[in-house]
Amino acid sequence: MSGRIYGIGLGPGDPELMSVKAHRLLSEARHVAYFRKEGRAGRARKLADGLIPESAHEFAMEYPITTEIPLSDPRYNEVLSRFYAECTAHLAALAATGEDVVVLCEGDPFFYGSFMHLYTRLKDTAQVQVVPGITGMSAAWTATGAPITWGDDVLTVLMGTLPAAELARHMMQADALVVMKIGRNFSKICGALKASDKFDKAWMVEFAAMEGQTVQRLSEVEDDHKAPYFSIIIVHGQGRRP
Amino acid sequence: MSGRIYGIGLGPGDPELMSVKAHRLLSEARHVAYFRKEGRAGRARKLADGLIPESAHEFAMEYPITTEIPLSDPRYNEVLSRFYAECTAHLAALAATGEDVVVLCEGDPFFYGSFMHLYTRLKDTAQVQVVPGITGMSAAWTATGAPITWGDDVLTVLMGTLPAAELARHMMQADALVVMKIGRNFSKICGALKASDKFDKAWMVEFAAMEGQTVQRLSEVEDDHKAPYFSIIIVHGQGRRP
Repeated sequence: MSGRIYGIGLGPGDPELMSVKAHRLLSEARHVAYFRKEGRAGRARKLADGLIPESAHEFAMEYPITTEIPLSDPRYNEVLSRFYAECTAHLAALAATGEDVVVLCEGDPFFYGSFMHLYTRLKDTAQVQVVPGITGMSAAWTATGAPITWGDDVLTVLMGTLPAAELARHMMQADALVVMKIGRNFSKICGALKASDKFDKAWMVEFAAMEGQTVQRLSEVEDDHKAPYFSIIIVHGQGRRP
Repeated sequence: MSGRIYGIGLGPGDPELMSVKAHRLLSEARHVAYFRKEGRAGRARKLADGLIPESAHEFAMEYPITTEIPLSDPRYNEVLSRFYAECTAHLAALAATGEDVVVLCEGDPFFYGSFMHLYTRLKDTAQVQVVPGITGMSAAWTATGAPITWGDDVLTVLMGTLPAAELARHMMQADALVVMKIGRNFSKICGALKASDKFDKAWMVEFAAMEGQTVQRLSEVEDDHKAPYFSIIIVHGQGRRP
């Protein structure tokens, strides 16, 4: 009897926004695994603080690199593939002894999440179950105090890492927009929003549903602002409504 | 001291996928309101079954119309505006007596939800708080057993009610797709997916995270299939990954 590997979405940051199911799995966990940057506590792990039983075994999966090697360098994929293979082997070995393992995921595991890299490597040989979570973008549009989409609005979700021209092209087509992975891409994203005539309608949300949450009109953010990587830019749809 | 009006997201259907916060607000509720079709139990209300205290007062907001009057008819907006104004007046009057009211919302309240119509009418005069929820689309892509987006994938969310040509144009631009509001739009959506060369990669999820959940390749669904309105079509992104 082999154990199960659960990838559980913990939601956007406020522990009360985790699902009842994630909460239950956490509080019953005997083995808990999570990604983190070397030497850091880890955002997912912090979100689960006080909920994991003291007796549980913890397995921190520390990224060997984050931004030290550019994405375009073939070594990037090599180093990360090896890392994911090692994590996978560890989790599979644990499950093979009959133990369940809970893997902590920020937001929703299948929406631009790191767990996906383990999932695709495990799904054919182990029992893996994914528990969806509230996304960071839901927390961000909720924080703006206005609905993101009405009626037939088209919503497009963009990563700030895309080239400026591609960003602008997609922004022009959409009614409602979410832009994620801001950080160093901030001024490029602002340029694309201006080119698509959406800059003045855009909002910037930092630390959505977390301590220190801020909500500002993008036009009121300073040009040289250092936006955290996990900030989210929102443009609301204006579709039909009675 | 006036009370608060809470719009709480109950998530996609499985009661365990509601947030800890929604669960807490429900179990402490003295007044609970929800939309439903006349003569029906109501999907949101059913999701909260067994969680609402027996002593709580319930207020069912019954839609005067759903599809009896076409959207294009001016009476549609008239009838619905009057209905939302009546609901709003009732909730505001309750809050004015110092009572908190919990309004049940399927999925996430600010993502194509009905609560938005009350929210915009209440927000300037009452204390309204929105609790985000897990969306139906998260449950749908989780049910397919494959991540929706990788790396820089562009995700576009489309309503099946859009004209065929618009659907196809947006489908061509996106990497990952979610199409909602299927129902009578089923064959139009299939046509647009074919025109954008995404039909063979599409999945159909019915009753995501609910009893009777089904997941099929769209190409294996019969042409004359009667898709429920709340089915969701998914096309997964195939972005870069190590």
